[in-house]
Amino acid sequence: MPSGFRHAAIVGKFQARGIRPVLEEVAHFLMGRGLEVSFERDTAAATGVTDFEALSPEQVGQRCDLAVVVGGDGTMLGIARELARWNMPLVGINQGRLGFITDIPLGQFQEALAPIVAGDYEEEQRSMLEGDVWRDGQRIYEGLSMNDVVVSRGATASMVELRVDVDDEFVANIRADGLIVASPTGSTAYALSAGGPILHPGIGGWIVVPIASHTLSNRPIVLPDRGEVRIGIVSGKDVSANFDMHNLASLLHGDEVRVRRSAFKVRFLHPRGWSYYATLRRKLRWYDGAG
Amino acid sequence: MPSGFRHAAIVGKFQARGIRPVLEEVAHFLMGRGLEVSFERDTAAATGVTDFEALSPEQVGQRCDLAVVVGGDGTMLGIARELARWNMPLVGINQGRLGFITDIPLGQFQEALAPIVAGDYEEEQRSMLEGDVWRDGQRIYEGLSMNDVVVSRGATASMVELRVDVDDEFVANIRADGLIVASPTGSTAYALSAGGPILHPGIGGWIVVPIASHTLSNRPIVLPDRGEVRIGIVSGKDVSANFDMHNLASLLHGDEVRVRRSAFKVRFLHPRGWSYYATLRRKLRWYDGAG
Amino acid sequence: MPSGFRHAAIVGKFQARGIRPVLEEVAHFLMGRGLEVSFERDTAAATGVTDFEALSPEQVGQRCDLAVVVGGDGTMLGIARELARWNMPLVGINQGRLGFITDIPLGQFQEALAPIVAGDYEEEQRSMLEGDVWRDGQRIYEGLSMNDVVVSRGATASMVELRVDVDDEFVANIRADGLIVASPTGSTAYALSAGGPILHPGIGGWIVVPIASHTLSNRPIVLPDRGEVRIGIVSGKDVSANFDMHNLASLLHGDEVRVRRSAFKVRFLHPRGWSYYATLRRKLRWYDGAG
Amino acid sequence: MPSGFRHAAIVGKFQARGIRPVLEEVAHFLMGRGLEVSFERDTAAATGVTDFEALSPEQVGQRCDLAVVVGGDGTMLGIARELARWNMPLVGINQGRLGFITDIPLGQFQEALAPIVAGDYEEEQRSMLEGDVWRDGQRIYEGLSMNDVVVSRGATASMVELRVDVDDEFVANIRADGLIVASPTGSTAYALSAGGPILHPGIGGWIVVPIASHTLSNRPIVLPDRGEVRIGIVSGKDVSANFDMHNLASLLHGDEVRVRRSAFKVRFLHPRGWSYYATLRRKLRWYDGAG
Repeated sequence: MPSGFRHAAIVGKFQARGIRPVLEEVAHFLMGRGLEVSFERDTAAATGVTDFEALSPEQVGQRCDLAVVVGGDGTMLGIARELARWNMPLVGINQGRLGFITDIPLGQFQEALAPIVAGDYEEEQRSMLEGDVWRDGQRIYEGLSMNDVVVSRGATASMVELRVDVDDEFVANIRADGLIVASPTGSTAYALSAGGPILHPGIGGWIVVPIASHTLSNRPIVLPDRGEVRIGIVSGKDVSANFDMHNLASLLHGDEVRVRRSAFKVRFLHPRGWSYYATLRRKLRWYDGAG
Repeated sequence: MPSGFRHAAIVGKFQARGIRPVLEEVAHFLMGRGLEVSFERDTAAATGVTDFEALSPEQVGQRCDLAVVVGGDGTMLGIARELARWNMPLVGINQGRLGFITDIPLGQFQEALAPIVAGDYEEEQRSMLEGDVWRDGQRIYEGLSMNDVVVSRGATASMVELRVDVDDEFVANIRADGLIVASPTGSTAYALSAGGPILHPGIGGWIVVPIASHTLSNRPIVLPDRGEVRIGIVSGKDVSANFDMHNLASLLHGDEVRVRRSAFKVRFLHPRGWSYYATLRRKLRWYDGAG
Repeated sequence: MPSGFRHAAIVGKFQARGIRPVLEEVAHFLMGRGLEVSFERDTAAATGVTDFEALSPEQVGQRCDLAVVVGGDGTMLGIARELARWNMPLVGINQGRLGFITDIPLGQFQEALAPIVAGDYEEEQRSMLEGDVWRDGQRIYEGLSMNDVVVSRGATASMVELRVDVDDEFVANIRADGLIVASPTGSTAYALSAGGPILHPGIGGWIVVPIASHTLSNRPIVLPDRGEVRIGIVSGKDVSANFDMHNLASLLHGDEVRVRRSAFKVRFLHPRGWSYYATLRRKLRWYDGAG
Repeated sequence: MPSGFRHAAIVGKFQARGIRPVLEEVAHFLMGRGLEVSFERDTAAATGVTDFEALSPEQVGQRCDLAVVVGGDGTMLGIARELARWNMPLVGINQGRLGFITDIPLGQFQEALAPIVAGDYEEEQRSMLEGDVWRDGQRIYEGLSMNDVVVSRGATASMVELRVDVDDEFVANIRADGLIVASPTGSTAYALSAGGPILHPGIGGWIVVPIASHTLSNRPIVLPDRGEVRIGIVSGKDVSANFDMHNLASLLHGDEVRVRRSAFKVRFLHPRGWSYYATLRRKLRWYDGAG
């Protein structure tokens, strides 16, 4: 018999106007189901909620056993990254158009959350990327990504040349606008726009997608995620590295961006009957045979 | 310390003109290295070689511990499929333009083979697809594929509609010229032409690629190979299923093609220093930074 | 001051169930606006309409000055091809999901048709393709296409090799599933699925799109429509040529398909305010900045 | 009977090491064929050539009737833009790998140039793009492009949103890395990398190609070049406009980039027998049927 959750943290998209009543409604619902409820610190500050204990992400990780996120995929990915090391299950409530990950519509949150907080849910795990940037033998940056690590040219440069190695094996030099290393989660984001395939989350790999490659045969390639992808800056102006939108600008020739699988996995909870493929059909407007 | 091979079977592309002296040269070289040498039966018959014992593929599987294939990727894939269940290592010698798999040029076969037959080589394993076709609850065809299983429209039809499920989950209906399910080995063949990515052989998955899909967002999708892909014929004329070029024509509405990972793996041996990425660079003319 | 139309022919999609009352409603509306109304012969026969004169396409061309088509894009393209040589203006009423060309919804046909039949409309002209097939110096087929001419492999063949020339200049040999030569009208149909761009109808050109080309750099190419594209069958089994779905099967090696611009243009009438780009936005679900 | 040229200007790629002897050899050859020879001013300065009259581009345009360019496509496009308004014929000699436009190998320049300077050649004309940038009703930049005008996001932004209009018709809002408007000449450059088709130079149009568009159906579209494409900056950080690599950075929301066909055409001269398709075959490594 599944055991339910005991202490939920509420996380919201801070910028959203009028989100406070929504968050409070979710909080009271959870309390009504017998859970202790706290607010993530920045969420509390941004909405002015003071009736609940405000916890830092670290405190959330230590004290809570569930994070309920109200917002879109971007909000979810941000907090998922912060809570990654505590193996915290996350569930997403979406106020607007449903996302790839945040798939409970606000209007039905009670029916959807009730069984989940009682321990009846579908769980899926998503891998994360861990990357760093090296210069002259020193690590000058490190970061985690749910979606992707992107190395790209500056706005005024015509292209960047990147040398790609996997572990100790040379792959190719890429002359392009840039290069994306995306997780299965990221395969439906920027990598898809740049021509990559969709990667099922059960694939132990990532997709390397050149952006507007000069060489037409430099097609996307799916690599096992047990290796490290090393991306060396050969030439290009104002080259930058992006880790899920966190940005390191002004990379120099000789700098190297290294990407590997994070030891942490993210746990997303979904209502029973949730289907990865149904999400794809909805988001990508696939044909389902019904006219 | 590696132990060498003892009994090699020679397999050749039958149609190749003048291949007999080449096969005999390879055979004598192997004998000179202390191996017993037999000829695959059809190869012996096609070339008129009678000095060596002729073995059926089954006998090759039972008695030999190495198959030396002289020909291109097509020849190799054909015999690999036949020998799959005996876990037989294969090595490929190429008379013409090097392939993705057959990467020892004929002119250097002695330097390349000498260490391999002595037990010093790189081995890579490739997964295979196993598929069957079902009609009215009966299995009417079964086959193995190294590259891919393709379901496609007849020449005079405008398109086919296929219903795709993975195990018990519905994926989508595809209206297209057809659908490719390709192994990592097949990802550089037809699937690449149809817009698919490259799959590293270390990926435990396959790529499902719609051919000229009516729905633009029906992008290639990489799926874990532990599930079964089921492709139902919804509509279309003269629909056919191809298993590595073995063809089953005239599928009917309601027929279902099922594809899963074969229990067998193919073992390819390469000279030390062989690199999967170097093969991609050469075959796809990727840029290597050297002008 | 624009002068209106005097004699309309009604054309319908024969197979549509229950289309008779709709066609009669349109006919009576036109009579009410002062037009003489006839029915295209096959439409009359299929629907059992006998109150109106039934005319062959040739008679429609000679006696009518407007064709009102009730159906989808397929119905419209079919009758447009038949009426092409009479320079007949066509207007399309759509019962279901609006098409690229048939853009008047049935529910609003009166408001839309009233100004059009009075002579107040937007007119756009679409070019057509004219093609023929040659064998041993003889022309064995000729046809007109609104959308495209497609040469493609048979279902059981792995690919076809085609030699492409433009007038007397050699372009390339294409090894692929086939080759599409599409008009601007056809650029949003099969050619789009196969990877081609959209061609504005004002472009004096067509698009040549290889289908799943073996050579990755064989990208779609837009050619001026003043030249003749010649497609020679080099190899392949059961190769066929399709002219807007009219099909010529079993082409032989050495056969040649020739495609050129037809001397005829098709005239489509639209309500004032009609926009080609608005149609693209609607059909392809482009983003319009509104959320 | 064709009349030959009388006064050639020599233009070289300044940066090339050791180009002086090559330029002098070409100059002496032309003098030997009876032509007066001058040097473009910057070329003379960079190479230290003083034996020939040095002319500004304007003087070249006024006094010379032929420009002989030694360098690659980039050098040619640069001088072509500068000489555009004088309708000057250009011929290109290439020291390295042949380009799309500069197709006379240095080693054969004498055989190739002799008939050309005598008036026996193939001429092709290429259209140019003319663009400007508007802010608050003021034109803040104007430029000419042989290849393309590109509006793109800054390195640290996730995407740009652009509103596209053609003349007074709204096309769509594009959320992407950027947008390329390319001439037929530019269709084989950056636009090809971003997924665009090839445009034959005889097409009176250009290709609009979104770069990594968020909306998968935002496919490349070929538009007649008689209209003006207007690209408004809706959102995005550090948006820039590039005119053949000349760059205008820091565009603001509300700025508009306008692109239209230039009144000038560029005239390229080629040896008899030159073929546009042969150039494509060579540059893109198309298959020609010969193995």
